Amino acid sequence: MRKCKIGIIGFGTVGKGVYRILKSKNDIHPILKDIEIVGIAVKNINKKRDIELENNLLINDPYKLIDDPNVDVIVEVIGGTDIAKDIILKSLRARKSVVTANKAVIARYGSEIYSEAAKYGVFVLTEAAVCGGIPIIEPLKRSLKSNQINKMVGIINGTTNFILTKMTNEKADYKETLKLAQKLGFAEFDPTADVEGHDTADKISILTELAFGGAVNRDSITTEGIEKINIKDIEYANKLGFEIKLLAFSERNHVNKEESLSLNIWVAPCLIPKSHPLSKVDGVNNAILIEASPLGEIMLYGPGAGSGPTAASVVSDILNLYASLSKNISSIDPLLAFNYWRDCHIIDFNQISKKNYLRIICSDTPGVIGKIGDLFGKNDVSIESIVQLDASKNKAEIVVITHEVSNGKFEKSKKEINRLSEVELIASQLSCI
Amino acid sequence: MRKCKIGIIGFGTVGKGVYRILKSKNDIHPILKDIEIVGIAVKNINKKRDIELENNLLINDPYKLIDDPNVDVIVEVIGGTDIAKDIILKSLRARKSVVTANKAVIARYGSEIYSEAAKYGVFVLTEAAVCGGIPIIEPLKRSLKSNQINKMVGIINGTTNFILTKMTNEKADYKETLKLAQKLGFAEFDPTADVEGHDTADKISILTELAFGGAVNRDSITTEGIEKINIKDIEYANKLGFEIKLLAFSERNHVNKEESLSLNIWVAPCLIPKSHPLSKVDGVNNAILIEASPLGEIMLYGPGAGSGPTAASVVSDILNLYASLSKNISSIDPLLAFNYWRDCHIIDFNQISKKNYLRIICSDTPGVIGKIGDLFGKNDVSIESIVQLDASKNKAEIVVITHEVSNGKFEKSKKEINRLSEVELIASQLSCI
Repeated sequence: MRKCKIGIIGFGTVGKGVYRILKSKNDIHPILKDIEIVGIAVKNINKKRDIELENNLLINDPYKLIDDPNVDVIVEVIGGTDIAKDIILKSLRARKSVVTANKAVIARYGSEIYSEAAKYGVFVLTEAAVCGGIPIIEPLKRSLKSNQINKMVGIINGTTNFILTKMTNEKADYKETLKLAQKLGFAEFDPTADVEGHDTADKISILTELAFGGAVNRDSITTEGIEKINIKDIEYANKLGFEIKLLAFSERNHVNKEESLSLNIWVAPCLIPKSHPLSKVDGVNNAILIEASPLGEIMLYGPGAGSGPTAASVVSDILNLYASLSKNISSIDPLLAFNYWRDCHIIDFNQISKKNYLRIICSDTPGVIGKIGDLFGKNDVSIESIVQLDASKNKAEIVVITHEVSNGKFEKSKKEINRLSEVELIASQLSCI
Repeated sequence: MRKCKIGIIGFGTVGKGVYRILKSKNDIHPILKDIEIVGIAVKNINKKRDIELENNLLINDPYKLIDDPNVDVIVEVIGGTDIAKDIILKSLRARKSVVTANKAVIARYGSEIYSEAAKYGVFVLTEAAVCGGIPIIEPLKRSLKSNQINKMVGIINGTTNFILTKMTNEKADYKETLKLAQKLGFAEFDPTADVEGHDTADKISILTELAFGGAVNRDSITTEGIEKINIKDIEYANKLGFEIKLLAFSERNHVNKEESLSLNIWVAPCLIPKSHPLSKVDGVNNAILIEASPLGEIMLYGPGAGSGPTAASVVSDILNLYASLSKNISSIDPLLAFNYWRDCHIIDFNQISKKNYLRIICSDTPGVIGKIGDLFGKNDVSIESIVQLDASKNKAEIVVITHEVSNGKFEKSKKEINRLSEVELIASQLSCI
């Protein structure tokens, strides 16, 4: 086999990790020695870097790598959306397969990118885009393909899981913990994408497409972040036997008349029973539970981020490409390639059905619990537990956990409860599994 | 793409599961519809079966399927070793790829089988041979190939894990629990391969070859089963903060002068701290921890056996073959194919180094603990804890947990302790992680 020649575009954390693996003295499969870096495109060639590079690898213009007939595979690790998208599409049109760690681009422009790859008979591989070093994209494309996937639930963002673990273990405040996470390098300078749940939504969008086979409208995924989580909610949840984690949830619903598969997808901070395997996933680790027929339930667990794990996924994708590299378009591996095989649509927010946690601050007068219970009952919302957890200065805090109920019914009840004269404030609302 | 035509040899639990998936009304990837069963070879065509079959699929002679030019892939699910080996080798020589769930054959004759497959330019895929429905073979072949694998520890036999879980939760006796497991179908009529650890050794042998790249001499894997585990040991372990599980362990040691990688491999019942993720793996579930550079630690968890999960792995292998099927020998996918890329050897029993648990029955006289401690010290065995746990009728039970120590030093100490006049019996010995 001839060598596999790659062009790397971007040389940040992941790019450097890829370079280190390819130059490493680790005891690895000999096939890795067949991967040759033709060039690395960076913004500023002369910038000081904490890594020693072989001569003349750095270049300024990414498009030179794309146009280089010597290059077989483009590794896109610059991040961002606009330029990255352009680089990916132009690479595919130049009949070069692409390996990317860019969840934002794939979640938003997957449709266009996958179909362009198919058109030009090349691949777009994305193992590094979701859950760092955990093999999840490949199993969804291949090993699990003999199953009907029914449901995926996961902790797939390391930053928020680090923050929530720290808040839980040390009773620390959200803002302080976020600052610490930034200091330790576990959260970015602008943490919006992580803490508001957008990064998690990008990832569950990608996994959903692979699992259920249809394009997903990324923007219609109901997404809540962890910014509003109060240390009080964590304490109450712990008391009641739960941990709070930011979860991504995606479930097949039913196929409608137009043969489009309806999907129940959401991202939200969630109470998880302490007996549930996901409740033990701490720090920057990720885990994803997959429920499938006839397989049953499996869990994949591991480091969700970091230079080493993410780069390991990039390099395994390069190896995959190298192993199945073929110039013959008609024989492209259809599982490795991935393309949509059906239509999907996300169900409306009001139709999403789940368990809920509600913390209500109200006056400490007899009968409040009864009134709240009545209002839920009237709206057909069944309650799992309702507990008065704290009372001081004539005020009481009531925590309600419902059974599974549609968002529509739950939101209606919430509005009516808010109107009760005894209720001062609905202090917080979380999901439960 | 033309259809993928398969011949199934054997129609027990797994074979029927494969048939059910291929005929299922589940909402699965359309590529599954391209798999066509040409025939199913069984011993007795007229036997009554709990499954309705399409006409004329059953045949008597497996070799007819192997010789049939219409058949692309042979699915070997008869089990056993001799006939199965012959069927696999003859299929490869007929240039047919093979999918097998047969861990015993692959663990014993992998060398011969892999090299025969390479010679004829076809594949032998074995996802179903280890850990039922958990994707573990594919990740080791592909997604993790960018890493140096350092260590694998796993619970990879469902039968023994079911028995140990039951013994732990219900304080039940070993023999009774085994009978129950047989009644429930979780243990075979002849449970030897499972309870004596041979099945676990077969599986860790296969995983080791894939992870470290060299052929392993299956017969030199130090193997202990669960037959001698006493309910008392489970109780004591629990008291001290451990669960007892049958573990498979495989670790890279070092490369010796002759460039052969030395491996530390064993199968043994083992005390696992309750905080360890493997301690939570109960019932017929399996899980495997893989420690790799630069990846870090991942865990794959799921159903380790059963018709559905195992058949799902068989079918995913068929899909894999179908997706990369090529008559061109020179372009065979080297990752999917797998072949050895180095030499390995298993270190000698006396060199294996691990923590140990020892339960000693002795006379309840002052100074015994001191004498035992001295003997260990003299032999350079460092002790983590030594506890007197039960005393009655002038007898005492002493439990010792050592730090990591070579089997050689430990066995020498054991002999000397056994010679102490106060020591009546070394009642049991287990490993620890």
